[in-house]
Amino acid sequence: MNVTIKISGHILFPSLDSQYDLSGYVDLVRRLKADGYGVYLVVGGGEPARYYIKTARRYGADESTCDQIGITVACLNAKLMAAALGDIACPFIPTNFDDLDRAIATGKVVILGGLQPGQSTNAVAGVLAERSRSDLLVNTTTVDGVYTNDPRKDPSARRFSEITTEELAKVLDNAGTKAGEYALLDPVALKIIKRSKITTKIIDGRDPMNVLSAIRGDAIGTTIVP
Amino acid sequence: MNVTIKISGHILFPSLDSQYDLSGYVDLVRRLKADGYGVYLVVGGGEPARYYIKTARRYGADESTCDQIGITVACLNAKLMAAALGDIACPFIPTNFDDLDRAIATGKVVILGGLQPGQSTNAVAGVLAERSRSDLLVNTTTVDGVYTNDPRKDPSARRFSEITTEELAKVLDNAGTKAGEYALLDPVALKIIKRSKITTKIIDGRDPMNVLSAIRGDAIGTTIVP
Amino acid sequence: MNVTIKISGHILFPSLDSQYDLSGYVDLVRRLKADGYGVYLVVGGGEPARYYIKTARRYGADESTCDQIGITVACLNAKLMAAALGDIACPFIPTNFDDLDRAIATGKVVILGGLQPGQSTNAVAGVLAERSRSDLLVNTTTVDGVYTNDPRKDPSARRFSEITTEELAKVLDNAGTKAGEYALLDPVALKIIKRSKITTKIIDGRDPMNVLSAIRGDAIGTTIVP
Amino acid sequence: MNVTIKISGHILFPSLDSQYDLSGYVDLVRRLKADGYGVYLVVGGGEPARYYIKTARRYGADESTCDQIGITVACLNAKLMAAALGDIACPFIPTNFDDLDRAIATGKVVILGGLQPGQSTNAVAGVLAERSRSDLLVNTTTVDGVYTNDPRKDPSARRFSEITTEELAKVLDNAGTKAGEYALLDPVALKIIKRSKITTKIIDGRDPMNVLSAIRGDAIGTTIVP
Amino acid sequence: MNVTIKISGHILFPSLDSQYDLSGYVDLVRRLKADGYGVYLVVGGGEPARYYIKTARRYGADESTCDQIGITVACLNAKLMAAALGDIACPFIPTNFDDLDRAIATGKVVILGGLQPGQSTNAVAGVLAERSRSDLLVNTTTVDGVYTNDPRKDPSARRFSEITTEELAKVLDNAGTKAGEYALLDPVALKIIKRSKITTKIIDGRDPMNVLSAIRGDAIGTTIVP
Amino acid sequence: MNVTIKISGHILFPSLDSQYDLSGYVDLVRRLKADGYGVYLVVGGGEPARYYIKTARRYGADESTCDQIGITVACLNAKLMAAALGDIACPFIPTNFDDLDRAIATGKVVILGGLQPGQSTNAVAGVLAERSRSDLLVNTTTVDGVYTNDPRKDPSARRFSEITTEELAKVLDNAGTKAGEYALLDPVALKIIKRSKITTKIIDGRDPMNVLSAIRGDAIGTTIVP
Repeated sequence: MNVTIKISGHILFPSLDSQYDLSGYVDLVRRLKADGYGVYLVVGGGEPARYYIKTARRYGADESTCDQIGITVACLNAKLMAAALGDIACPFIPTNFDDLDRAIATGKVVILGGLQPGQSTNAVAGVLAERSRSDLLVNTTTVDGVYTNDPRKDPSARRFSEITTEELAKVLDNAGTKAGEYALLDPVALKIIKRSKITTKIIDGRDPMNVLSAIRGDAIGTTIVP
Repeated sequence: MNVTIKISGHILFPSLDSQYDLSGYVDLVRRLKADGYGVYLVVGGGEPARYYIKTARRYGADESTCDQIGITVACLNAKLMAAALGDIACPFIPTNFDDLDRAIATGKVVILGGLQPGQSTNAVAGVLAERSRSDLLVNTTTVDGVYTNDPRKDPSARRFSEITTEELAKVLDNAGTKAGEYALLDPVALKIIKRSKITTKIIDGRDPMNVLSAIRGDAIGTTIVP
Repeated sequence: MNVTIKISGHILFPSLDSQYDLSGYVDLVRRLKADGYGVYLVVGGGEPARYYIKTARRYGADESTCDQIGITVACLNAKLMAAALGDIACPFIPTNFDDLDRAIATGKVVILGGLQPGQSTNAVAGVLAERSRSDLLVNTTTVDGVYTNDPRKDPSARRFSEITTEELAKVLDNAGTKAGEYALLDPVALKIIKRSKITTKIIDGRDPMNVLSAIRGDAIGTTIVP
Repeated sequence: MNVTIKISGHILFPSLDSQYDLSGYVDLVRRLKADGYGVYLVVGGGEPARYYIKTARRYGADESTCDQIGITVACLNAKLMAAALGDIACPFIPTNFDDLDRAIATGKVVILGGLQPGQSTNAVAGVLAERSRSDLLVNTTTVDGVYTNDPRKDPSARRFSEITTEELAKVLDNAGTKAGEYALLDPVALKIIKRSKITTKIIDGRDPMNVLSAIRGDAIGTTIVP
Repeated sequence: MNVTIKISGHILFPSLDSQYDLSGYVDLVRRLKADGYGVYLVVGGGEPARYYIKTARRYGADESTCDQIGITVACLNAKLMAAALGDIACPFIPTNFDDLDRAIATGKVVILGGLQPGQSTNAVAGVLAERSRSDLLVNTTTVDGVYTNDPRKDPSARRFSEITTEELAKVLDNAGTKAGEYALLDPVALKIIKRSKITTKIIDGRDPMNVLSAIRGDAIGTTIVP
Repeated sequence: MNVTIKISGHILFPSLDSQYDLSGYVDLVRRLKADGYGVYLVVGGGEPARYYIKTARRYGADESTCDQIGITVACLNAKLMAAALGDIACPFIPTNFDDLDRAIATGKVVILGGLQPGQSTNAVAGVLAERSRSDLLVNTTTVDGVYTNDPRKDPSARRFSEITTEELAKVLDNAGTKAGEYALLDPVALKIIKRSKITTKIIDGRDPMNVLSAIRGDAIGTTIVP
């Protein structure tokens, strides 16, 4: 069984001056690999990416270049994860689709940062899940699933245990102008999940063991029914 | 002044067995170049792309691979356009963002087919407009602008002369389940237009002279006010 | 045992509007792979390549660019075949010799479209046979071997069961000015076959089972004795 | 006249949480370019590189991989500088020598981060100065030249206004085991300067105007006489 | 006016231990460039290539790998020529067709060694002449043109001042089994010359001034009438 | 156990006109591979590299370009070795670090020539030893170890059986101005050995069996204690 895991940059790289702690996810991936899973990772850019992008924007960079800088940071984070995983990881970080094919052909844990400007890491995770023929896409965030409303603002917000892509599109729409703050999944990522019918789980990834629970089929987070 | 033009694949490559007629757009680009414009093109895959994708899907290809095959056809079409333009065109078709930078550095007409799976040619056009610092993005389709409703079905549908990105998002939403048939712009393309504040015109591109009118500022098609 | 098979583009992609049928060759390759053969394929551009080249020429493209466009179509066809073969195929299509080495190192079915302008797909097949250390090169066409004369014009034409490279060169020479219509093998391909002493069989590939017969050593088509 | 400037990462990127200030160097490069200089930059990795390397090492990465991670950060910094310089900068950051040739051929400001593990940014600056046929290599640090001894420890330390590569080698040798802390130039960089006879100035780069003074021939810092 | 010159490896690199003398061709190219010509060169592998190939063959390398080794030597020779030409030469040596397009876009003297196994340097010269839209292809050898027979063996052999591609094909055919020793042009090169209708002159290139004469239209060597 | 072997170019390619004899090292590597060792090779440029560099310098090439030419020759030599080793060798010669990762991932004998200008083959060997996680680095020369003084000049010179990196640095320093003639290891290579704590043996490689002895732990040559 193949599984694609999108690790939010805000989980592994939450600030500029904290000590980055990769050990939980390193242990998780080693355990999955030892259990025979094919493991594919997308690692976000986190706070360093946001900081570099902010600086680039201050000096007048166009938005695509800002994206590209963010992708470079995410690839750097991916490289760091590859180094931490050692021999079980594909040592190079693909930056285009042809290279992704080469990486998958190694049979190792493939780690992506991002591919091209204008594509979210969620969309990249969807594409990776498709190309690696993953049976499950686990999308980690800092909340424990999809809610009827932003749980930080509305105490009556209720978590979905299952949701269809259509329902999720509506929930994300209602989040309206605050898209930037609450964007669990962008429309492209949703479209990819829908077209490929890949079961997707949105979980709180701050504890890597939640990913293990999600893969084992425990009732955790929100499952997007394709 | 720099201008990015997205030429719908359905305009230049409408079917498998027709004789492809590039001459109108070749003349247009030569004229724009002679007038001192920086010209950047995105060429879609058209019917050949749809046909190859359909075949790949029949043999069980995953959706990302189908996308990649469609991109290859679009790049082939771009190569054909580059050949037809001759010396004024950048002779290689970039397939990643680094390569795009190399192409822009030649100072010639840069032509893209597509970049990576999961990205529409409209999104690619947005990214190209950003990176080339275009002042205008002309998006050609086979209708003459954005309507309140699908004009082929609702005779009372009214064309917008101007529309904001927010209004356009709502119009596209209402098109609802028929997204595939009436998708003038996908959400990512919209987001790129919005973030970069690039004036975008949606026009009927079956007559290339309409592009000239749009660039000259004539009242034609629908202008998206960023 | 390694075998290189050149599949004529006119067999798989005979026209623009037909439904491309890859299933016979997909089954053949799966069977060969299951039987322990190393399988290497060259797929031609067929009718789509001819059509794109004709269009490029109409717009004044130089012949090398026309070649390059034809190669791109052949690579697209190769990509389609790779998608249809799924996991047993090397997922990327090499476009240069260094990349070919990388593809061979994956141990999977390697599929080429073409490499560089000025090289026929037959020459590419010869080079691939050499580099993959193939014991046999099967060259499929739409006739069932090499004849003393064009069998479509001369009813008394006799099929060779075996022919030396020298004899074949003479037969091809006699075909004279109509080289374009009856060019089973160009001189470079012949030279490669000769220098590498790779047994080559020219067979009617419209029925993929003929390839199996040729590999098994049945008396079929014409064998070029190096 | 061509000039290569090595900007210490510790000057532009001194810590993780400071606001990176590129404006002084951006102004300097624009001015030099406007005055007709060919400008070539090497930008170091600074504190972010040190932090990422420290993290990689904590997770057991080999030293070459650590180098590679540091180079990626330096290339990221170079990309940021390219974005800040806008149109006068070569938009892609070369990561190998062939690519460097392509970048130089654009006629724009070429910015390097680093090339390969085991090579200091000083050595890269030397190689860039050679390849760009620079007449002057300006090496910025956080002290104002080469001293007879570490000026932070020995008040009687005297600054050289000129020094030969042989004398400099001896001074660096005497710095002995503390090489890491006071390594103005590593032996490879020295060797490159010597072999190419490129006049090199070591100056305090915290004020970018010092670079201008050095280029104009003012008595500033230490000049290495090749 | 653009001109492609194929410099035989045996002229510039005639043996392993001689001092290679590039100065005549360096002067020629500088002069042509100063006179406003676009200049494109193909440099052969000469004796070092033959020696390396012989060694590779002794250790059991397949013929395509031998070709590839020969191409690497020819590219090395091309790199040497680029270094000798300095700033007027494109500093990188293209090894595939996409790269050739990038090189041509620099507007400098483009120098090729070879592209892919199975292609002679003469065929490469033909392709380069096409792609660079050269008006003339000068093919240098160590004899002063095409003869009715091998002039070293038949004193009555007569030099053609003009010859058609068809006639040339016959002359080369008659040379028969000794093709290796007297192969002025292989069939692929002939085909390229024919299809592109590029005027081609075969001259004695041991004196580089003969190339200048050929370009100026003097009666020298043999002109292939396309 | 993994082992990196640096084969001096002067051992395999000692002159221009000698017959290169690779058989001893081919046998050695096959034997090591059969015994289960991971084998990584760096092959120097030898006399052909020196000759090409000398020619380039005569025509005014900058030193980095000379380095690059030398690296190309070393890569050619590496390619020849790969061809001689056949299927057990990685068929492509990496020229950058990303490519090295791809080569290591094949699990075959990886052979490097050189990477970038300004880096000695000894430094490359150090980097390769790190990246391949080699337990031992064998450095072959034409003397049988490190001596207190140049044994060819001082008959009383004594060979070290063990030496620390610090002591070795001093010995190399004393060799002083004649560095070019007696440079067993440059400072960068020393630094890499030191930082990575890789046991390194310097032996007389003219007899390949000495490498086997060194790997088996026999008292041969000089061992650098990291």
